[in-house]
Amino acid sequence: MSAVPKSSSLFPQHVIAAKRDARKLTRDEIDAFVRGATDGSWTDYQLSAMLMAICIRGMDTDETAALTEAMMNSGTVADLPGVCLPKVDKHSTGGVGDKVSIHLAPMVAACGVAVPMMSGRGLGHTGGTLDKLEAIPGFRVGLTLPEYRAQMETLGVALIGQTAELAPADKKLYALRDVTGTVESIPLITGSILSKKLAEGIDSLVLDVKFGAGAFMREKARARELATTMVAACRHLGKPARALLTAMNQPLGRAVGNALEIAECVDCLRGNGPADLMEVTYALGEQMLLLAGVAKTADEARAKLENAIAGGAALEKLRALIVAQNGDPRVIDDPAAYLPRAKYQEAVVAGSGAGGYVAGVDAMGIALAALNLGAGRVRAEDKVDHAVGISSLVKAGERVEEGDTLAVIHANNEGALAEARESVTRAITFSQAPVAVEPLVAEII
Amino acid sequence: MSAVPKSSSLFPQHVIAAKRDARKLTRDEIDAFVRGATDGSWTDYQLSAMLMAICIRGMDTDETAALTEAMMNSGTVADLPGVCLPKVDKHSTGGVGDKVSIHLAPMVAACGVAVPMMSGRGLGHTGGTLDKLEAIPGFRVGLTLPEYRAQMETLGVALIGQTAELAPADKKLYALRDVTGTVESIPLITGSILSKKLAEGIDSLVLDVKFGAGAFMREKARARELATTMVAACRHLGKPARALLTAMNQPLGRAVGNALEIAECVDCLRGNGPADLMEVTYALGEQMLLLAGVAKTADEARAKLENAIAGGAALEKLRALIVAQNGDPRVIDDPAAYLPRAKYQEAVVAGSGAGGYVAGVDAMGIALAALNLGAGRVRAEDKVDHAVGISSLVKAGERVEEGDTLAVIHANNEGALAEARESVTRAITFSQAPVAVEPLVAEII
Repeated sequence: MSAVPKSSSLFPQHVIAAKRDARKLTRDEIDAFVRGATDGSWTDYQLSAMLMAICIRGMDTDETAALTEAMMNSGTVADLPGVCLPKVDKHSTGGVGDKVSIHLAPMVAACGVAVPMMSGRGLGHTGGTLDKLEAIPGFRVGLTLPEYRAQMETLGVALIGQTAELAPADKKLYALRDVTGTVESIPLITGSILSKKLAEGIDSLVLDVKFGAGAFMREKARARELATTMVAACRHLGKPARALLTAMNQPLGRAVGNALEIAECVDCLRGNGPADLMEVTYALGEQMLLLAGVAKTADEARAKLENAIAGGAALEKLRALIVAQNGDPRVIDDPAAYLPRAKYQEAVVAGSGAGGYVAGVDAMGIALAALNLGAGRVRAEDKVDHAVGISSLVKAGERVEEGDTLAVIHANNEGALAEARESVTRAITFSQAPVAVEPLVAEII
Repeated sequence: MSAVPKSSSLFPQHVIAAKRDARKLTRDEIDAFVRGATDGSWTDYQLSAMLMAICIRGMDTDETAALTEAMMNSGTVADLPGVCLPKVDKHSTGGVGDKVSIHLAPMVAACGVAVPMMSGRGLGHTGGTLDKLEAIPGFRVGLTLPEYRAQMETLGVALIGQTAELAPADKKLYALRDVTGTVESIPLITGSILSKKLAEGIDSLVLDVKFGAGAFMREKARARELATTMVAACRHLGKPARALLTAMNQPLGRAVGNALEIAECVDCLRGNGPADLMEVTYALGEQMLLLAGVAKTADEARAKLENAIAGGAALEKLRALIVAQNGDPRVIDDPAAYLPRAKYQEAVVAGSGAGGYVAGVDAMGIALAALNLGAGRVRAEDKVDHAVGISSLVKAGERVEEGDTLAVIHANNEGALAEARESVTRAITFSQAPVAVEPLVAEII
């Protein structure tokens, strides 16, 4: 209620009140907010009042780009001067069974593009690339910035966790958003994702924005809004970007669970990947090659990627990456022998009268089954069991007869096994008539 | 992003998200929020995210009444079973020179109504009743709850500070609102004001909602919205209430500053109060007597109040109150001798060519002059100088000639005196033509 004039319009209360009143924030105001998050000069309660105001009032492209840039500059920006190849990364908003990064990165790297990929851990229903990689015995995801630079220079690809030096403002803000009902805000999501990605030192970025029952954004329209915002913010900051809107109603591929997904990635690089998984992988890879300038058309890019698989270059790239990051490369040659294996394996089989066509496989049902088996985390501090999960999942549209395997459950205790059997059974629905399956890639933005 | 079902919809994140999405909150959700503020089970950052969501999304009457009730019940509700008289209080949203409580409470008490009045301290441009009372040597504003009850039983009137037991949720929330840009929210203001007032143990309440340049709400429409909301919330909670919308463009009365205002209150009770101040005082007093049921019409109430002054009963009530609260009652008989007095007194005089009519006296200009002299606080921890301020202020519409006194400045150092001289001079504007003055009481709600 004080009417005493303040010497600065950048006091937290004033910046917060501006967004509360739906005013467009200046770059200085956004910088003050992000600096406040980074150096502690704004209190947690001021930060969260601001996050709520942004969540409700929104931000336009200028503001979102300024937020992204300020968050990116809140820590180290990992320049990669020793990497001469074009540097392109891919980011997915997360889905069930989404292990694309693990085989896509070596595929693209095998085509002469540097792929400096930093990923996160899983939380809730979505798995995390780092957890999957750690299913490989010995694999190190925690490279230092110098180690990361060196590997990018020698190998042209890295699959690591975000180092602590990158975008510290995001760590602070994300932790607050999670407990203050401010996760679901397109400008805040954009700032969070892009600040980390742009701090990797990339030249351009491909985004996989998922929609549907197993995605963070259920509605396609909202996914499109996020995709459009992220692409616009990237361009604003001088980084060309493309976004694919892809459907996430059933799990991607046939495996959900860390070691099981690594085995599926190896299958992909051997040319035996599930069709749906490869469809998304190729679509993303094509855009990466186009942005990198190593292909002029999508067809040319596709041919290069297929060739990297057919000729074995992609698989060898993954092997070299595993070796470089201290993992056991024998998982490439014999996944079943060298990846962790659960105590129980049990097939879920189509019962009598269950025959016909698979109408759908509920991604969320499968995700929760995997989570209960121990494959994921409810809280950030939970431990992940790398061995457990679900494999050999049927896909929507497939014909099944009585006695066919619908899925195999991998469990480390009998109680969880029984629960998973029920959840998986419930997640799979049938139709007597043939089921048409929509293409996974709905739009390219 | 966790999809794991929570066992309760009353988790902070869920309640916050409901208001974020503009949903009407249930009583349970509001109770959870207020309980969280009181017992610390909600973190400060969750509380402030919620405050921002309420600030932007608003609350309807049901929600506002539930918020008020929950805040009131967050601490002791001071029942006054030993007080047989009807118990009515008055609350003002605050203005410049607003010392009405100090003479109104004994006037109304002298008419056979119990007035259990708890007040606050000044901050920014508005003075606080407690600061004014503390200009009286020895005066104690910090009664305990038993002392307060005893005084209400014997004297029927008390002028004290809020005890720590009352509405602790408001203390917590107010401190957060002040630094998170969430002060200006009608449901939050309503909850804050009414929770404290209703916890005093009153039967009914009269509200003085000010609008204009020197008020917290500048626009009359917004003041009306606040008044309507507060009256509706009171009725919802079974406490009849009336609100007056009163103009606050120039200071109320002729004195601004703690001791100077006490002297003016004594003048009021001796029948020598400034017309504008008495106009508001009588209008509020009439409503209090009507709500208490001790008068049937406004005219009857007015006659009783005038009689309490003319017969000296109101002045003697104030004397008894000062004695009961340990103050020096000689300030009643000789304010100049027993109230603190500043080192310098200097008249601001109308210069040549300044003659004509007073067009206006800018309340904010006078308030800031008083604040700079030391009469108020910029921060809550600042000390107040009780002696300083401005007295003998001209009023809008008055005719002045060259050489007339426009105001007298009371200062304790020469630098502040010089600054105040300039501010006061700037605050007073003139017109050659006669100036019509609007009535102070614009509406009764």
